[in-house]
Amino acid sequence: MQSYGITLRTDPEKSDIAAIRSIVTSTNAFRPDEIDVAVELIEERLSRGTASGYYFVFAEENGIPVGYTCYGPIACTVASHDLFWIAVDKNRHGKKIGSHLIIETEKLIRAMGGKRVYIETSSRADYDATRHFYHRHGYIVEAHIRNFYDDNDDKIIYSKEVAR
Amino acid sequence: MQSYGITLRTDPEKSDIAAIRSIVTSTNAFRPDEIDVAVELIEERLSRGTASGYYFVFAEENGIPVGYTCYGPIACTVASHDLFWIAVDKNRHGKKIGSHLIIETEKLIRAMGGKRVYIETSSRADYDATRHFYHRHGYIVEAHIRNFYDDNDDKIIYSKEVAR
Repeated sequence: MQSYGITLRTDPEKSDIAAIRSIVTSTNAFRPDEIDVAVELIEERLSRGTASGYYFVFAEENGIPVGYTCYGPIACTVASHDLFWIAVDKNRHGKKIGSHLIIETEKLIRAMGGKRVYIETSSRADYDATRHFYHRHGYIVEAHIRNFYDDNDDKIIYSKEVAR
Repeated sequence: MQSYGITLRTDPEKSDIAAIRSIVTSTNAFRPDEIDVAVELIEERLSRGTASGYYFVFAEENGIPVGYTCYGPIACTVASHDLFWIAVDKNRHGKKIGSHLIIETEKLIRAMGGKRVYIETSSRADYDATRHFYHRHGYIVEAHIRNFYDDNDDKIIYSKEVAR
């Protein structure tokens, strides 16, 4: 898929480790320990392949990754998938790159037999734009887990049916 | 801690791989793919140590593991822990082994600075006894995720505050 000068790619490469660290850091939305988790997932995928359970979509501009999603089937479920990460480089916001990424990710999940996508995010005010983005893409609030991330920082679980 | 002829142990051993497979299989509560996940967690712990994020408590009777818990801090949270697995050999049910295991696990989580414990389980009728067990131990229903495990098989998320 190519549109708006953006190319999507699903085959992870060694250089994506640095690219993911750079993209996630640029957003200013994550703590250092969260950034380390984002990097661990691509490392796991590169060392263990799809057995890692982690799948990726990268959005590239002139061959440079500027955004990505990380998703995968949820163990012990029949057709539920997690969207673990979606992030777009801070300097590339407002170009619909996130929309391309989430639509392509849902398409790939559907192609794998997935019926539902889950996204977990924070209730904090600095995640307002993120939550609006999920709403616009048809995600509904499935649950609200109080104080999950920290005192007064709840986890909101979104879901979307993606079956045909 | 020793009581009712049960000894608790937290240091995982190679032989626990087979023990966990045997305990989890004996309960008749899990599909083969779920049993594989239970086994993967002890394998991960044995190969990566506590960096795996998986911690264990084993209940032994005459040196033989008859039940266990697997738990760990939840990435990207400050003080939340997951209780991933709790299982007792089918032939040892009714001896309060599960209660000893969950109380010890909560104590260890508290000692690690954990404030909240989360348990996820199925809404299916064959999990009635399991859900009553969590209620008796002070866990409350935090969320109900419809069709999570499969169509008409919801995920119920329990939580308990364990901070001093």
